[in-house]
Amino acid sequence: MNVHTEFAPSPDAKTPSQADMMAFVYHGPGKTAFETHAKPQITAPTDAIVRIVKTTICGTDLHILKGDVATCKPGRILGHEGVGVIESVGAAVTTFKPRDRVLISCITSCGKCPACRNQLYSHCEHGGWILGNEIDGTQAEFVRIPYAETSLYPVAEGVDEEALVMLSDILPTGFECGVLNGKVQPGGTVAIVGSGPVGLAALLTAHFYTPSEIIMIDLDGKRLEIAKRFGATAVVNSTDGHAVDAVMALTDGRGVDTAIEAVGIPATFELCEDIVAAGGVIANIGVHGHPVSLHLERLWDRNIAITTRLVDTVSTPMLLKSLKAKRIDPKLLITHHFKLADILKAYDTFDHAADTGALKVIIEA
Amino acid sequence: MNVHTEFAPSPDAKTPSQADMMAFVYHGPGKTAFETHAKPQITAPTDAIVRIVKTTICGTDLHILKGDVATCKPGRILGHEGVGVIESVGAAVTTFKPRDRVLISCITSCGKCPACRNQLYSHCEHGGWILGNEIDGTQAEFVRIPYAETSLYPVAEGVDEEALVMLSDILPTGFECGVLNGKVQPGGTVAIVGSGPVGLAALLTAHFYTPSEIIMIDLDGKRLEIAKRFGATAVVNSTDGHAVDAVMALTDGRGVDTAIEAVGIPATFELCEDIVAAGGVIANIGVHGHPVSLHLERLWDRNIAITTRLVDTVSTPMLLKSLKAKRIDPKLLITHHFKLADILKAYDTFDHAADTGALKVIIEA
Amino acid sequence: MNVHTEFAPSPDAKTPSQADMMAFVYHGPGKTAFETHAKPQITAPTDAIVRIVKTTICGTDLHILKGDVATCKPGRILGHEGVGVIESVGAAVTTFKPRDRVLISCITSCGKCPACRNQLYSHCEHGGWILGNEIDGTQAEFVRIPYAETSLYPVAEGVDEEALVMLSDILPTGFECGVLNGKVQPGGTVAIVGSGPVGLAALLTAHFYTPSEIIMIDLDGKRLEIAKRFGATAVVNSTDGHAVDAVMALTDGRGVDTAIEAVGIPATFELCEDIVAAGGVIANIGVHGHPVSLHLERLWDRNIAITTRLVDTVSTPMLLKSLKAKRIDPKLLITHHFKLADILKAYDTFDHAADTGALKVIIEA
Amino acid sequence: MNVHTEFAPSPDAKTPSQADMMAFVYHGPGKTAFETHAKPQITAPTDAIVRIVKTTICGTDLHILKGDVATCKPGRILGHEGVGVIESVGAAVTTFKPRDRVLISCITSCGKCPACRNQLYSHCEHGGWILGNEIDGTQAEFVRIPYAETSLYPVAEGVDEEALVMLSDILPTGFECGVLNGKVQPGGTVAIVGSGPVGLAALLTAHFYTPSEIIMIDLDGKRLEIAKRFGATAVVNSTDGHAVDAVMALTDGRGVDTAIEAVGIPATFELCEDIVAAGGVIANIGVHGHPVSLHLERLWDRNIAITTRLVDTVSTPMLLKSLKAKRIDPKLLITHHFKLADILKAYDTFDHAADTGALKVIIEA
Repeated sequence: MNVHTEFAPSPDAKTPSQADMMAFVYHGPGKTAFETHAKPQITAPTDAIVRIVKTTICGTDLHILKGDVATCKPGRILGHEGVGVIESVGAAVTTFKPRDRVLISCITSCGKCPACRNQLYSHCEHGGWILGNEIDGTQAEFVRIPYAETSLYPVAEGVDEEALVMLSDILPTGFECGVLNGKVQPGGTVAIVGSGPVGLAALLTAHFYTPSEIIMIDLDGKRLEIAKRFGATAVVNSTDGHAVDAVMALTDGRGVDTAIEAVGIPATFELCEDIVAAGGVIANIGVHGHPVSLHLERLWDRNIAITTRLVDTVSTPMLLKSLKAKRIDPKLLITHHFKLADILKAYDTFDHAADTGALKVIIEA
Repeated sequence: MNVHTEFAPSPDAKTPSQADMMAFVYHGPGKTAFETHAKPQITAPTDAIVRIVKTTICGTDLHILKGDVATCKPGRILGHEGVGVIESVGAAVTTFKPRDRVLISCITSCGKCPACRNQLYSHCEHGGWILGNEIDGTQAEFVRIPYAETSLYPVAEGVDEEALVMLSDILPTGFECGVLNGKVQPGGTVAIVGSGPVGLAALLTAHFYTPSEIIMIDLDGKRLEIAKRFGATAVVNSTDGHAVDAVMALTDGRGVDTAIEAVGIPATFELCEDIVAAGGVIANIGVHGHPVSLHLERLWDRNIAITTRLVDTVSTPMLLKSLKAKRIDPKLLITHHFKLADILKAYDTFDHAADTGALKVIIEA
Repeated sequence: MNVHTEFAPSPDAKTPSQADMMAFVYHGPGKTAFETHAKPQITAPTDAIVRIVKTTICGTDLHILKGDVATCKPGRILGHEGVGVIESVGAAVTTFKPRDRVLISCITSCGKCPACRNQLYSHCEHGGWILGNEIDGTQAEFVRIPYAETSLYPVAEGVDEEALVMLSDILPTGFECGVLNGKVQPGGTVAIVGSGPVGLAALLTAHFYTPSEIIMIDLDGKRLEIAKRFGATAVVNSTDGHAVDAVMALTDGRGVDTAIEAVGIPATFELCEDIVAAGGVIANIGVHGHPVSLHLERLWDRNIAITTRLVDTVSTPMLLKSLKAKRIDPKLLITHHFKLADILKAYDTFDHAADTGALKVIIEA
Repeated sequence: MNVHTEFAPSPDAKTPSQADMMAFVYHGPGKTAFETHAKPQITAPTDAIVRIVKTTICGTDLHILKGDVATCKPGRILGHEGVGVIESVGAAVTTFKPRDRVLISCITSCGKCPACRNQLYSHCEHGGWILGNEIDGTQAEFVRIPYAETSLYPVAEGVDEEALVMLSDILPTGFECGVLNGKVQPGGTVAIVGSGPVGLAALLTAHFYTPSEIIMIDLDGKRLEIAKRFGATAVVNSTDGHAVDAVMALTDGRGVDTAIEAVGIPATFELCEDIVAAGGVIANIGVHGHPVSLHLERLWDRNIAITTRLVDTVSTPMLLKSLKAKRIDPKLLITHHFKLADILKAYDTFDHAADTGALKVIIEA
């Protein structure tokens, strides 16, 4: 989940008791607190309680802080990413037991509704993106995970836990919404508009399919430098307003087979409309707040596809195998580390990415 | 190719000589003539000259008459559909010989460029939709077909030639742009917005995949009656502005798996945005003259795809087999018959479809 | 699941008590009984107890009776098909409640193992085909269904229950193993070798994709007559040993795009090798007891695929929608009706299909 | 095209005249000559004459020398790989002109028959594998290429010509028959049985999809060393007869998602049957001379696919792009260099690969 935004935290902590824990809580637009909060309890036989070991902050969390996410009510513990240790499980949970180390998926999947049976976990009738949104999340010492057997993943021995945190959301988001939907293929040409964390996650996972060209487009020269280090074959700084010409020059005038939108504003989506080749795909990852102009008067006969997607995290098992086999290095995305007690500082760093150079921050509980 | 429009013919015929033929010629916006014209000649070894037996008029021809198609210059013989008989072939043509009966594809495919080798014939470097647009077309006694071996199809013994004319453009258009792009599947739900000839062609070919529901939407009650006869499981008259509610009521509030846009205006495309289910597809067939609003602020997380397509006619061999096996009855689309000499009357009938009830008209040369 | 075999029932019933029920029990090769048996109980929070309303017999049951299925031990209640009514559910079951009418899938799916998450339910780590095989089955008054929420389907109001019984196994088997694996397509040519119940189920469901030709091959003229009534476009009696020639004559010497093996012996599989076209698929449904000769010395360069599959029942939701929409008539497969008390007679009728003309028998509990 | 075999050349050269050239000619089993031969001429308007710059020897050529390829008659110039320069073109050829540098595909594609229109070039009605088989081939100073526009590829400036020769046959063969048919995927496990040139080509191209594990199996330790250098994650020497156990140990007992057969004998194919996981694919590349036992008695319910394929060379444009973008290094396969005049020595070296360590040899004309 992806966004660029700002926030104004307003902490209001009190001393924790035995059954309490510390948590980062949203109290309405611009108001947050790192404070004591009751520890979560098992409420259904399919639940698990997970003690958080490491978590992180997502652009979507910044969206919530601005009041842009109507489903997230004041009083909510934020966070939908992390790795942890099983503390307790409900009576129906047989595949996890206390002390198992687990990866938490940002998407809760009941595993039984028609959407889940069709691998469309994002639209699970009983889950979807609820963690740190409609139910309390992972920016705390403990979290309750509903439908634990289909929303958690066992952690293989020896896998780096910081790398794993990147598999909760950002890597499957870049991969599924950008790379898979965009049908990235060997020999293909790809442009990624937006070199922030999600765009870079798309870049890292695009390499799975060995496209011939990956062109990274952004306004920020520093982020484009990072993109080059991550394997972009060309970078385009769109500050001068000539990004379309630059992409056309790089693709013999054809445009790109895959244009990945990783920002979430009309200008960047419309740039994708201008650079996609006949027969190509525009894969949207960005979280949009406004309609965009779809220029069907020139696209109706271009044989293109446009896709949207909330990450399903169906690719998580594959990403876990790739991580274990060292086929990808997600830690490249991690720029900063904080203790949970310093989460306000972590938010501040993450929110001022232009100054701090933050991509993803690791928060240790 | 699809459009609703009007036209103003301006005939200006003269007496034909030996090397002349009669043809319907576009002379600029609102000006046409059924007049004598030089017979076409072989100009490349891959050409064939075809004597037209039957042709028809497409909504796109009406677009041209209005001056909406910039690539079509005054002096052009219109028409991109038809069946005929080979008159002569160039030196490199070995798979056709004089007197062979052939189906003419609306798309000219060179068979050798990267687009053609990828089955994207609509974007052929040397062809695409050029017939009756960038080169002279089929509304005449004779036509020159470039790249004949990959742009004509042999006609099997005993196949009805009027049915065949529907395979030049309208059936592959409805099928490829609507049904294939829309991923119509057994058990699925389909809505087709626009019950004109192209929408009805999508309806007829949607049956190939036996979806559970096909909902037809139009403003015209008479066309909806036709849709019912063609196998629509439900019809929605959108005159009252409650089409979205009606579709939701018919789909248990889910929306449709496939929404096919077969009109070409913003209102109908945006209707598709409102009725597509999570995980579904909007398959655009309509020829649009203006941008539409794409409501990414509510579609970004709906896991949908939007597709556009100029027909490739890759499905023509399949449609020919299905026609031969009597798996489809394209003649259902034919409402009127004219002689070539009466083509002005044919255009008039086709253009005033609301009054005449015209779907497709057959013109016999 | 499919087989032709014979059996020798050996009933040994006693009077049922309150906590007992009547059930058809396998007691080792050639030995069976319709006898009293303890009613099943909930043993896991994900279980449901279902009161059987209607069940049937599968060719695989005959296999078991012969002792061919090593996983099925003496003392086992047979049967893996049926519709029923929920009697009770475990603590974790929330989507079903007592008195709900349900369809029982022949495949038990836990919904959470990697195979289930990949829609490969047949290879579920905790389920697969266990019903009436490794755990007690449906040829009884009651059955325990593990992982009820992912192994049962709600029955929509007004759907015919006898038709539904065909969706437990035989229709998804014919459809998934034959039609889907065989990539049956509009315009394609299909041959189905074996016109028994499973072959006919493949025929019925092949129509979903409107192939141009469906050629049915069998030794039994009566079954071929049935195939014609079910929509086969041609039938070939292979008694004379010239089936290959006959298929080639029907396909202009090309062979078929899809060859479906629905018998399970080397001769019929090798017939498929002889009739598949270059680029085609052999989709195996038959349960084989012996190796077959794969003639790679002439198939290595034919660009074919051969597929095997134990039904996953992933298509059950689609089949339910198609049934509700009256897009398929599974009752065509039902030839006989029996009361549960007459199950021995039902087995006898089913086992002597050549004489009785039995396809599927309905057993009412 | 792939094979292990031996040969016995029997040269019988004479002095070349003006219209003559030197060529390697097959004169029946065990008999060959490097001799003068008439230069080829344009015989159809779609032909091109190409002056060979570099060519190579294929395992299939050794097959021919043994008399195993019935379609190849005595008197034939062998060879179906190479790069060259256009010498002259027929009247219908517009996309190539004299002096253009071209890659020769081992598959001749007419571009217009149903097979070619479906991208099944290997089964082209007028082409397929005919070069150096049914018509004279590339182991000569000049070659006639029928259907030049769809059987040759333009060579981009600056691309290494020796690398290019690997794209005539061996790379597309390993890629299409092994990697594409085998559905190699990120996170997947692959075993390649046979570490000869074709198996190694499959290994090199498998990396396009970044599978987690690629296990290489062979009897020859030296070839397994090469496989390690080419990126195999594990190697198994099958000399001890325990290859199945070794693969199971490497895959947690699951077997592999993709088993690629790159030898062409029953033992290696049956090894693939033993190591393929449920839901996996056996992709055959090997040229087989005998039937194999397909153990359907244990594979019928394993949900596997087995594929065969003569290379179509549909992937050549993609491979050219990947080569230009330096995403693959085909020169790794080249072990030896010869002048055309030394082609007998080249054959000898290639045929005694176990001693010479030969993989692919480059022959310069």
